[in-house]
Amino acid sequence: MTDEPSMSQPAFELHPQLAADTFVVGELPLSRLLLMNDHRFPWCILVPRRQELRDLHELDATESADLFAEIRRVSLRLLALGHVDKLNVAALGNRVPQLHVHVVARRTNDAAWPGPVWGSGPAQPYAPAEVKTLLTNLRTALHLG
Amino acid sequence: MTDEPSMSQPAFELHPQLAADTFVVGELPLSRLLLMNDHRFPWCILVPRRQELRDLHELDATESADLFAEIRRVSLRLLALGHVDKLNVAALGNRVPQLHVHVVARRTNDAAWPGPVWGSGPAQPYAPAEVKTLLTNLRTALHLG
Repeated sequence: MTDEPSMSQPAFELHPQLAADTFVVGELPLSRLLLMNDHRFPWCILVPRRQELRDLHELDATESADLFAEIRRVSLRLLALGHVDKLNVAALGNRVPQLHVHVVARRTNDAAWPGPVWGSGPAQPYAPAEVKTLLTNLRTALHLG
Repeated sequence: MTDEPSMSQPAFELHPQLAADTFVVGELPLSRLLLMNDHRFPWCILVPRRQELRDLHELDATESADLFAEIRRVSLRLLALGHVDKLNVAALGNRVPQLHVHVVARRTNDAAWPGPVWGSGPAQPYAPAEVKTLLTNLRTALHLG
């Protein structure tokens, strides 16, 4: 894996809106793994490190297999947090035109259930100690740094 | 491919809510392809014919590759309808506990933009002639019956 720029593959740069809304958990083989700064939902975002992609179908077969494996890996980790009733997986990108995939752990008593998390009101940022614990948990379990 | 019941694989049955809300477009190798009866959005739903799945990560590697290929196939077909600004792909299932994947063609002037289609108000059913034309278009282009 490489994020080096080349003639055919421009350097990856995270969209500033994603950077502003999230914490970086670490780098998976294909994607940068982010944690949404909204303590209402355990909410990860996978961003394949390909600079000019917008839609899921633009990934080739190898990349899509890698992405699916990363979705599974993150899904299982979120389930392991406990008290998860449903996972929501989505590539929307109406507001942020860089391909990214949400993996959200949903609970039947969460702030948006049974509606979608998008458009469910303003994010409620984590307290510093809370997000530190969660990031450590995710990084350790996913073997990321 | 088989939908025959066996000891290990119970017969596939479409969830009644999905049956009520959609038209059947046809059968892809893994999934039944549906068209949501909401003329505000060109909106397909892929339902892998596996009876007891709820979440995306429960598919094995072969099934997930098949599903990804079908998402791509349907995405390209929706793009070919014209005037599509963005695709939304999502496995939510908070209300309907049978694994299904939405593939929705979005336009920047549609009824929910830039919000998600889920929770954007009641569906507006197609006129019979309109849906007949669209179903024929999809079946022909996707080589379904």
